[in-house]
Amino acid sequence: MRTEHVTVSRRDLLSLIGAVSGSAAMYHAMTSLGFASDSGYKGPIRLEGDPKGASVLILGAGLAGMTAALELRKAGYNVQVLEFNTRAGGRNWTLRGGDSFTELGGFKQTCAFEQGLYINPGPWRIPYHHRAVLDYCKRLGVTLEPFIQLNHNALLHATMAFGGVPQRIRHIKTDFQGQISELLAKATQQGKLDEAVSKEDREILMQALKSWGALDGNYAYKANLISADFRGYAKEPGGGLSATPIPGEPINLSDILKSRVWRYLQNFALYTFQTTMFQPVGGMDMIGKAFAREVGDVIRYDAKVTRIQQDGRGVTVTYTDLKAPAKPQQVKADWCVCTIPLSILSQIPVDVGDRMKAAIDAVPYTASVKIGLQFRRRFWEEDEAIYGGISYTDLPIRQIAYPNTGFNGSGRGVLLGAYLFDGPNAYEFTSMPPAERIARAVEFGASIHPQYRAEYENGIAVAWHRVPFTLGCAGNWTEKARAEHYGNLCQIDGRIVLAGEHASYIPAWQEGAILSSLDAITRLHDRVVRT
Amino acid sequence: MRTEHVTVSRRDLLSLIGAVSGSAAMYHAMTSLGFASDSGYKGPIRLEGDPKGASVLILGAGLAGMTAALELRKAGYNVQVLEFNTRAGGRNWTLRGGDSFTELGGFKQTCAFEQGLYINPGPWRIPYHHRAVLDYCKRLGVTLEPFIQLNHNALLHATMAFGGVPQRIRHIKTDFQGQISELLAKATQQGKLDEAVSKEDREILMQALKSWGALDGNYAYKANLISADFRGYAKEPGGGLSATPIPGEPINLSDILKSRVWRYLQNFALYTFQTTMFQPVGGMDMIGKAFAREVGDVIRYDAKVTRIQQDGRGVTVTYTDLKAPAKPQQVKADWCVCTIPLSILSQIPVDVGDRMKAAIDAVPYTASVKIGLQFRRRFWEEDEAIYGGISYTDLPIRQIAYPNTGFNGSGRGVLLGAYLFDGPNAYEFTSMPPAERIARAVEFGASIHPQYRAEYENGIAVAWHRVPFTLGCAGNWTEKARAEHYGNLCQIDGRIVLAGEHASYIPAWQEGAILSSLDAITRLHDRVVRT
Repeated sequence: MRTEHVTVSRRDLLSLIGAVSGSAAMYHAMTSLGFASDSGYKGPIRLEGDPKGASVLILGAGLAGMTAALELRKAGYNVQVLEFNTRAGGRNWTLRGGDSFTELGGFKQTCAFEQGLYINPGPWRIPYHHRAVLDYCKRLGVTLEPFIQLNHNALLHATMAFGGVPQRIRHIKTDFQGQISELLAKATQQGKLDEAVSKEDREILMQALKSWGALDGNYAYKANLISADFRGYAKEPGGGLSATPIPGEPINLSDILKSRVWRYLQNFALYTFQTTMFQPVGGMDMIGKAFAREVGDVIRYDAKVTRIQQDGRGVTVTYTDLKAPAKPQQVKADWCVCTIPLSILSQIPVDVGDRMKAAIDAVPYTASVKIGLQFRRRFWEEDEAIYGGISYTDLPIRQIAYPNTGFNGSGRGVLLGAYLFDGPNAYEFTSMPPAERIARAVEFGASIHPQYRAEYENGIAVAWHRVPFTLGCAGNWTEKARAEHYGNLCQIDGRIVLAGEHASYIPAWQEGAILSSLDAITRLHDRVVRT
Repeated sequence: MRTEHVTVSRRDLLSLIGAVSGSAAMYHAMTSLGFASDSGYKGPIRLEGDPKGASVLILGAGLAGMTAALELRKAGYNVQVLEFNTRAGGRNWTLRGGDSFTELGGFKQTCAFEQGLYINPGPWRIPYHHRAVLDYCKRLGVTLEPFIQLNHNALLHATMAFGGVPQRIRHIKTDFQGQISELLAKATQQGKLDEAVSKEDREILMQALKSWGALDGNYAYKANLISADFRGYAKEPGGGLSATPIPGEPINLSDILKSRVWRYLQNFALYTFQTTMFQPVGGMDMIGKAFAREVGDVIRYDAKVTRIQQDGRGVTVTYTDLKAPAKPQQVKADWCVCTIPLSILSQIPVDVGDRMKAAIDAVPYTASVKIGLQFRRRFWEEDEAIYGGISYTDLPIRQIAYPNTGFNGSGRGVLLGAYLFDGPNAYEFTSMPPAERIARAVEFGASIHPQYRAEYENGIAVAWHRVPFTLGCAGNWTEKARAEHYGNLCQIDGRIVLAGEHASYIPAWQEGAILSSLDAITRLHDRVVRT
């Protein structure tokens, strides 16, 4: 859509487009006209109308559950929350020195990190467009700092390419882009794009490729101070005498193509991972703790839900008090917001219709493993000038992520030494005892950072399929399952509504959990005040 | 250089290459073999040998001068520093509420920012490869936080394009890259690259372009959920019902080309501006203040140097005490490290040879203007989801840079409302009184962010050509001037050596100042211990 000749106000035009063409056309127009996209979060929820003392039982004190608790209590509901763990937050979770947890299979690990160091086994980054998470952080006083996704000086590693030597992202990225630009510029010059691009545009295209691709006067990408301005130098410019910079030799396109490390470049360009991302100062669980400061008084911990019943008058939930498991307990309420992960919920008897039950059973959970490793010193910064960000490898550890806090500091540091998400390696690592997972992460990591051998101190490994409160990382929807079941999962069934990342189009993200919860309680409240 | 079959150790190979091919070849090999590039900074300087009580007079307490003071005193010299200002740091400078300064021409401004808010009129960001600056920050206890250069959600604005509506960087960047990829993929498919790319590589190239360019199964870049994953959505994926995402319509390549906003994309890819960049927590002058904690006791402030003399026995510097200007003062020392900017030094009688004098006179200084604007609220975050980073425009203000600290906070904020570097706009703004510069910045900025009109509170404008202690922003070397004069500028002349960003290949950067100083004092010390 061209907008050069718009003379009506943008807002009037949008109303007009909306009226005549429907909402999809209006969305397109909004984008073209420079408005922010529609984030699905419209600012603090407003639940108007009196629930007249209605009670709501919320299952799960993760972000979805606590969002519901906070907002429904504010709207006048009588709120109770049952939570399996001894803490609030759910997958919003940070492991620090002294923390321990026992996974399915009985392995117990105690984190031995130095004070102040941590890993986030679950969510660890917040996109700037996750407006709901950011708004709750603001309202609840959670301080944020940048999360670095793309660090140009981090590494791309392919076992069978470049003699196994990791390459700087900036070299692969710049050399790929430069040589792509050269190919296209030369094809344009040779008249090969005459059909595809107008003459006027071809001239500008050549200039753009030269600028964007760091090409020289002959539209060539090669070792010179033009490409060095983008890829870095073999010898950096300096001060005083002997300070002349020396450019490095680009990696040729054929080697980059064959290495297949180009496939990592798209990660950095994804909307989800674009700058500016955030993390809470001090660990992701600062968010869970902030919610718990608001609603902790209505959370009953150590409560394992074993049955969910409903009839025309209300909901009855049976649970085991894990501190006194002998006698089953019950709670009754008028309504229920259930945020229990589908991996668990599918194993609990629930009084819902066939369609919702089928939906609950339809979603497998992604396997994921994260391993935190403590080292004696921040060698990645000191020796290699890697400050934050992520190195990617085709080794089973897949990623090494560097801490985005305490930059340029002395002393110990904790790396995310492996982040396996989906795929066979995640299952393979899940099947190992924690100590073996950690040993493998150290072994594989040492082939990228040989300093591992001298500097490694201790580690902790979370394999999500063995985490008792989720039995998996997040809902793994296929397109087919979504078409068939998603609507049924989200509909209110009698007096029960489900919420959580699994009931969203943003699976595995906190934003999905919160937006799902806000949508669920909006519809639930609407039903309550209308009945 | 291909490295797949290297079997000797990397270090042995490098020695071999160095021995047979010289240093440039070795630098290339180092890069290919995965070593960090040679930064020109080899870690803390070691000045070995006894200077036997020699005295050094340092002119200027900027980073170059204070580096020299700190290291030479540690090496056993008797050190004194003369500084024009009433504070240390020089261009390492932060303006906060209550600070005032008077520029050439007599205009005095007092900063009215709320407590905790600031702008850095001089350097404001630190690349991760500025190893010397980072090492001094570490040694002197200066805490760093990320500086966001590229924020995908910030804006590109061209007055005559897109009806004057600013465009999101992520749209321009993704749509340009996608359509470039489509052009190249289709040319490849049509056999037009058969001469340039081998058959084997062509197949991988197609895959790489599809991945990198967000192309669909037919190698087309268009409005769908593939491109939306990179450029963002018209309607974001959400939670619960009505949560389906809707892709936006890409901006067509012809419009992007004609708009010329593509030329801003290269800024973000420059090695100098690549992630991870830093800024000191609390303002850039935390570095100057940290140096001053070490060497402040040897700095004499308010000292305006008027003459620099030397003979075979020592150096005599005449200065005016600006607090008692009637009687000229003198200091004598065995040696002198002069860090006075060439823009000032060229106006002072200095006893140096013709070649150094010609070099001192050969370097004009860049014009630069920075304008800080305080607003009632952080509307760029609240209304537009712009967290840090820089918007570029072809308006005279050139840039609007958003604060990289206090993210997601409430209350007031300070923008860099204009950053003019070189070019006619910088001179034009320098010629205006400060109040007019600020008024223009607000007026221009409002065409990008209409919120300016309601939210603007106060501002401050620094035009570097009117800053008494530098009369310009930084040394503006041409290639010709460098070839003729740079070596002469850096050579020790009798008992005098010059240092500062102007005596480096990294002009206008703090790293240049420090590296230049380290190089100068290394050579000076060598001469001292040998005489």
